[in-house]
Amino acid sequence: MDEKAVEQAAHRLAPVIHNVRVTKSQTFSDMSGCELYLKCENRQKTGSFKVRGAYNKLALCKEQGICEVIASSAGNHAQGVAYASKCLGIHATIVMPKSTPIAKVQATAGYGADVVLAGDCYDEAYAKALEIQAENQAVFIHPFDDEDVIAGQGTIAYEILHDLPNVDIIVVPAGGGGLLSGISAYVKAINPRIQVIGVQAEGADAIVNSYQKKQHCSTESVNTIADGIAVQNPGEKTVKIINHCVDDMVRVSDDEIADAILLLLEREKQVVEPSGAASIAALLNHKIQCAGKRVVCVLSGGNIDVSFIHKVVEKGLLTRGRNMKFKTLMQDVPGALEQFCTVVRQQSANIIEVQYDRFQADLGLKETIIHMAVEVSGRSHGEALIQALNEAGYHSEVE
Amino acid sequence: MDEKAVEQAAHRLAPVIHNVRVTKSQTFSDMSGCELYLKCENRQKTGSFKVRGAYNKLALCKEQGICEVIASSAGNHAQGVAYASKCLGIHATIVMPKSTPIAKVQATAGYGADVVLAGDCYDEAYAKALEIQAENQAVFIHPFDDEDVIAGQGTIAYEILHDLPNVDIIVVPAGGGGLLSGISAYVKAINPRIQVIGVQAEGADAIVNSYQKKQHCSTESVNTIADGIAVQNPGEKTVKIINHCVDDMVRVSDDEIADAILLLLEREKQVVEPSGAASIAALLNHKIQCAGKRVVCVLSGGNIDVSFIHKVVEKGLLTRGRNMKFKTLMQDVPGALEQFCTVVRQQSANIIEVQYDRFQADLGLKETIIHMAVEVSGRSHGEALIQALNEAGYHSEVE
Repeated sequence: MDEKAVEQAAHRLAPVIHNVRVTKSQTFSDMSGCELYLKCENRQKTGSFKVRGAYNKLALCKEQGICEVIASSAGNHAQGVAYASKCLGIHATIVMPKSTPIAKVQATAGYGADVVLAGDCYDEAYAKALEIQAENQAVFIHPFDDEDVIAGQGTIAYEILHDLPNVDIIVVPAGGGGLLSGISAYVKAINPRIQVIGVQAEGADAIVNSYQKKQHCSTESVNTIADGIAVQNPGEKTVKIINHCVDDMVRVSDDEIADAILLLLEREKQVVEPSGAASIAALLNHKIQCAGKRVVCVLSGGNIDVSFIHKVVEKGLLTRGRNMKFKTLMQDVPGALEQFCTVVRQQSANIIEVQYDRFQADLGLKETIIHMAVEVSGRSHGEALIQALNEAGYHSEVE
Repeated sequence: MDEKAVEQAAHRLAPVIHNVRVTKSQTFSDMSGCELYLKCENRQKTGSFKVRGAYNKLALCKEQGICEVIASSAGNHAQGVAYASKCLGIHATIVMPKSTPIAKVQATAGYGADVVLAGDCYDEAYAKALEIQAENQAVFIHPFDDEDVIAGQGTIAYEILHDLPNVDIIVVPAGGGGLLSGISAYVKAINPRIQVIGVQAEGADAIVNSYQKKQHCSTESVNTIADGIAVQNPGEKTVKIINHCVDDMVRVSDDEIADAILLLLEREKQVVEPSGAASIAALLNHKIQCAGKRVVCVLSGGNIDVSFIHKVVEKGLLTRGRNMKFKTLMQDVPGALEQFCTVVRQQSANIIEVQYDRFQADLGLKETIIHMAVEVSGRSHGEALIQALNEAGYHSEVE
């Protein structure tokens, strides 16, 4: 793939996508010790960069007179193909696994694509797509291992170099490798001084292995919260480009990703999906040497289900000591809870759960354990509460 | 206040704040039937528009040789004054109520301001600030009822008119009235055709009352989740300008605000605080006649505590039927829960809570009630689960 293909793609895409300018983050610069910029593809049309590759591919299909395409995806590729087909007046069929969250099904169908729900996992949906394709002769749109798709994703690099030509490092999440291969190929063609570093989840690291062994590798299974980059078998074409053009590959853990999502919510006011937050997670956990450099992190998408946001925030509240659970031995007599609650109120903690527990063999007949969950302002507030309870004669233990 | 003051403020502010360009929202345009644009002050320096007024005021103070200021605030004004004082090399003391979330205290202190924690509410912190001021002769920086502060907030209108000169309506949240008076005064001076509409929370509507009665009103109390606009006594100066320049005032409920916050998270990938989401809440709930018009909603800030995001998302999951709680009469025998869970698993629902409940007088000795909470993909999935349970012989009732 040469740089011309990327630049042609950029011109094709310009009228139909957002060019979300690279923006500096002072907070994350301070936290990571570099000059940190964000490329916010979470605010791209359809909520992720996938629309770039899909549109570029479909526009080229249309030039060849093709008017029927098919794809299988549970996520961002589905929405990208559906949106692109609507823009271009091409008919699209998207096969999605039955377990796909209803919001993603609705978003895809909302662009006018025919959605077929089939299979319990991606592979079964993919098999169904091939079946339908055999009948209707549609062109199958691969999510990453396709030169036109790769060129489309590379347009992100074209925009970054326009906004920040003196960038030193670009950090890119990788699953199948379409985004990373497109960006690295273009960057190296234009300015080989600029480093491109790929990031994978620890539980789905086929490209890291491929990069280290200098040959295409797959993994037997994937296990990560970052569903957008949970790919067992990356592309043949993409891995070839990555092994040639990328400067380093690193891994991040699910906990590091979850923490990055929460920090992006709190400090940048941005909703980013797990795969999109992998790049920031790598920076904040010092996986990349970047002191004093100008670094662009690609936040590749923002399509995160609300129930997942809920879990990420819940976990963050616990690990930061904002929510706390403790148990206390209490007298099993009228007024006992009231007296106890007086101490809790004096410490300005907000009770969110109370459970009585008498299933303890060593409890006296006039005793009970209570488990209480509270909201506090932070770890030191929580410790002050436990101390106050102990001083008031309640033996309380954090659980 | 004349428009020159706003334009001078805009020039003063340009080097130290973000000019976050007005961006179109296709999703919210479709939902509200107008051409909807967002002015994202949630991504402003310090996380809210308050930095504009604070910086303008402090810059003018500095020109007069003042090098000591004081303010009282539990929120965005504190961070605005602290950031501005750091930029200008002025010493700032900020008095915050003791209950202020630790993150806001840290953010304020992080800009180098001296933070004094005093009092249980804003009024007590304010009294303490006046006490300190009597000692150290600092200039008190009012959060809204000050011409230089008002001119600073008006710079938002200056930027909107630059980005979208043909705007028809600008929708603005209002508490003390600084933002609304600054925007409306500037807009009416430059283009009286453009409508400016203010939005307040139902539980803190002193400016709506003032506007309708054509005279300054206060409310006896405030009760709203939108702490940024929970003001009992709006400004004398601000109300005078608002009553003269604003085209209409509307109210939104806390539920409407919470729903808007969730939609902004999901669809726009933006974190917006309750007061900031009031403008979008007014649009989405048809409080404003806007069919076919070009409308800019000012999202005034993004400083929302994570525990609050948690509650908003939790409520949204319940009201949308994504989380569901039901109770079932079961046999109190070995294997009963396993059999029951088989049906739940067949319906692909995810169990998140189980509670046994034997405190029911009409229960047989071999019976128990269980309360179960599950995650489902939506309301119809939840209904299908209840139906499947009933068909399997379990009398289940949604709680």
